[in-house]
Amino acid sequence: MTQQLSTLHEGLRLADWTQSMKRSVLRDMIAVVSRPGILSLAGGLPAPELFPTDAFAQATSHVLTTHPRALQYAPPFPALKAHIVELMAQRDVPCAEGEVFITTGAQQGLDVLARLLLNPGGQVLIEETVYTGIQQVIAPFQPEILTVPTDLETGMDTGAVEALLREGARPAFIYVIPDAHNPLGVSLSREKRRHLVELARRYAVPLIEDDPYGFLCYEQRPEPPLRALDSEWVFYLGSFSKILAPAVRTGWMIAPEALIPKLTVVKEASDLETSAFMQRAVAAFLDTGQLPDHLAILRLEYGMRRDTMLRMLEEQFPPEARWTRPTSGMFVWVELAAGTDTAALLKRAVEEEQVAFIPGHAFAVQGRSHANHCLRLNFSNATPERIEEGIRRLARVIRSG
Amino acid sequence: MTQQLSTLHEGLRLADWTQSMKRSVLRDMIAVVSRPGILSLAGGLPAPELFPTDAFAQATSHVLTTHPRALQYAPPFPALKAHIVELMAQRDVPCAEGEVFITTGAQQGLDVLARLLLNPGGQVLIEETVYTGIQQVIAPFQPEILTVPTDLETGMDTGAVEALLREGARPAFIYVIPDAHNPLGVSLSREKRRHLVELARRYAVPLIEDDPYGFLCYEQRPEPPLRALDSEWVFYLGSFSKILAPAVRTGWMIAPEALIPKLTVVKEASDLETSAFMQRAVAAFLDTGQLPDHLAILRLEYGMRRDTMLRMLEEQFPPEARWTRPTSGMFVWVELAAGTDTAALLKRAVEEEQVAFIPGHAFAVQGRSHANHCLRLNFSNATPERIEEGIRRLARVIRSG
Repeated sequence: MTQQLSTLHEGLRLADWTQSMKRSVLRDMIAVVSRPGILSLAGGLPAPELFPTDAFAQATSHVLTTHPRALQYAPPFPALKAHIVELMAQRDVPCAEGEVFITTGAQQGLDVLARLLLNPGGQVLIEETVYTGIQQVIAPFQPEILTVPTDLETGMDTGAVEALLREGARPAFIYVIPDAHNPLGVSLSREKRRHLVELARRYAVPLIEDDPYGFLCYEQRPEPPLRALDSEWVFYLGSFSKILAPAVRTGWMIAPEALIPKLTVVKEASDLETSAFMQRAVAAFLDTGQLPDHLAILRLEYGMRRDTMLRMLEEQFPPEARWTRPTSGMFVWVELAAGTDTAALLKRAVEEEQVAFIPGHAFAVQGRSHANHCLRLNFSNATPERIEEGIRRLARVIRSG
Repeated sequence: MTQQLSTLHEGLRLADWTQSMKRSVLRDMIAVVSRPGILSLAGGLPAPELFPTDAFAQATSHVLTTHPRALQYAPPFPALKAHIVELMAQRDVPCAEGEVFITTGAQQGLDVLARLLLNPGGQVLIEETVYTGIQQVIAPFQPEILTVPTDLETGMDTGAVEALLREGARPAFIYVIPDAHNPLGVSLSREKRRHLVELARRYAVPLIEDDPYGFLCYEQRPEPPLRALDSEWVFYLGSFSKILAPAVRTGWMIAPEALIPKLTVVKEASDLETSAFMQRAVAAFLDTGQLPDHLAILRLEYGMRRDTMLRMLEEQFPPEARWTRPTSGMFVWVELAAGTDTAALLKRAVEEEQVAFIPGHAFAVQGRSHANHCLRLNFSNATPERIEEGIRRLARVIRSG
């Protein structure tokens, strides 16, 4: 997947790490699946028909008519921080406004933390199958990447984490998605949450808790985030992208207050600040008190879509296939028969049945082959009818393989 | 200015470069000058009373009511790229939509380019007095910083650039603000523009042309940007922050088309993408055709404010003081008598006369002392009356020193 740039003008030298730069598979995929007629279960997109667009339009309009300086540079908006403290309390996370750091989405939180914590050539600990965004963030550091496997029912193998630390590994951070893992769909068990936090403290290694999906829970009692168990070693990343809309490009970090000034300097280098207008608009939307009802709608609708997908997989997929049963988030991870090449399968799926997914290898660290027979399916961005049709088509491609 | 974090919990290790992290002087300053009663000539803020807020509110409302997916993730918006191509043509820069790379403001353009071009410990070439944002961007790379002086009438000392290159320096890039230098207010002469581009080609060193102020020109015939002279070695950075409003957080880069895929991967790691909603809103504002009239208003008003500031400096400041006469942008750079300590002067200015500026040392590379007797004044964010009053107060502080 190394990219060729044969037309680049002679003599231009790029940074060394770019030699091994991967194209963004997901970004390329979006180009493929936006072709008309493709039924896509590929992207990580929320359902745009569920966006609270009218309420958000009222919020933007309100902000622009009542705050003459809403479009100016400004420090982080305190009222938004107050809303975030409330949101975190709903997840059993106690925090103060002074610990809230506004980001231009959770991806920026990752990026800022990597710069704060990671030296060039330093160690990081991640799962061997994981969100591509973390892999892209660490690539410029040319780090030593330590990996652990993930159990599809209980999450990250914290025993493997402990073994690495006991043997002397001292990663700059451990990256973990405790709820609704992307791409695996699994959530971390209570025991493993406690174990991870205990390891972080014992070995003085920070945990980056990436939680864009934690508010999209389809079961009664979700586990609280890691940040509920520790306020010193856990850096929590939240986002409005999946609970309001991606284009607000607004998220947050909960971090030790003593680090906020340093985080501010790092972020300033990155994009100066998160749009003051957008911060005020998000806060104005939250002021209306509509988020709880909106979240209830998302949970109901996405829960139904998840149920539809799981039912159809049961009905249509071959008996040797296995898949995760996510309690939250947007993704189901499917393992097909050993030896299946899901990259080749995707090509046929698009050509023969106009249906798309992301092949597992896209999420495998350092081009490893362990996920070559796997695929990620998204259930948030298609109606139940489209999901039924999509799984039927996909099953036909698999059977005819 | 190294920051103390005495309350940080024991054992947390940060990346090495953070040991020498500077606080953001400008950010700290904004806190000081937002205190009620302070007359600020400090910040780099545009005039919020001139923002086309109503037109922009109509644009956002139009986008949200007509594009049901305006709040979704989306690829860069082609119509915005087309507008940018037109804007660049007005500056005599020919470019194609395929060379336009949308950024979350020009600062992000800088950041993305540094990651693409600079190795840890690599060389960069910048002016010894320069925008703090570039210094913040390169700090994590712990680079070897080569510097050249700047002439206050003709800009960057390109002879010094040539000497460094001739002696074997091969910086990852040369950073230059050809129009309305921040903080010096000077624009680069035509001869030096040609010289720089010729050097970039001869020595195969990219130029980063940072141009947030180029559209704010108060003279008849501005020089075209460096990008008008070369399309291979010049990476041009533009921004809507100063010509529309900062909170749109939307800017652009003009770069060789072959590099756009790599730039996309680097940007994706940083913030996934620039808000599709904001891109559409900016494009919708530009669709109305109001930008030329709006720019005319900005040029007229800012030009008047500049004239007021220059007249007042002439009238009020001591005869040994010297200052730049900017043809564009937002800043005047003042040199006071040798030996003056403008950091101490600021303290007195705020306490005794409730007036603020940025002391020159804030812009000096690596804590050098050459600008300790200098200061930066902003004329865009105060009315002519306030500028008159501000310069009077400042002159009193200087005289009483």
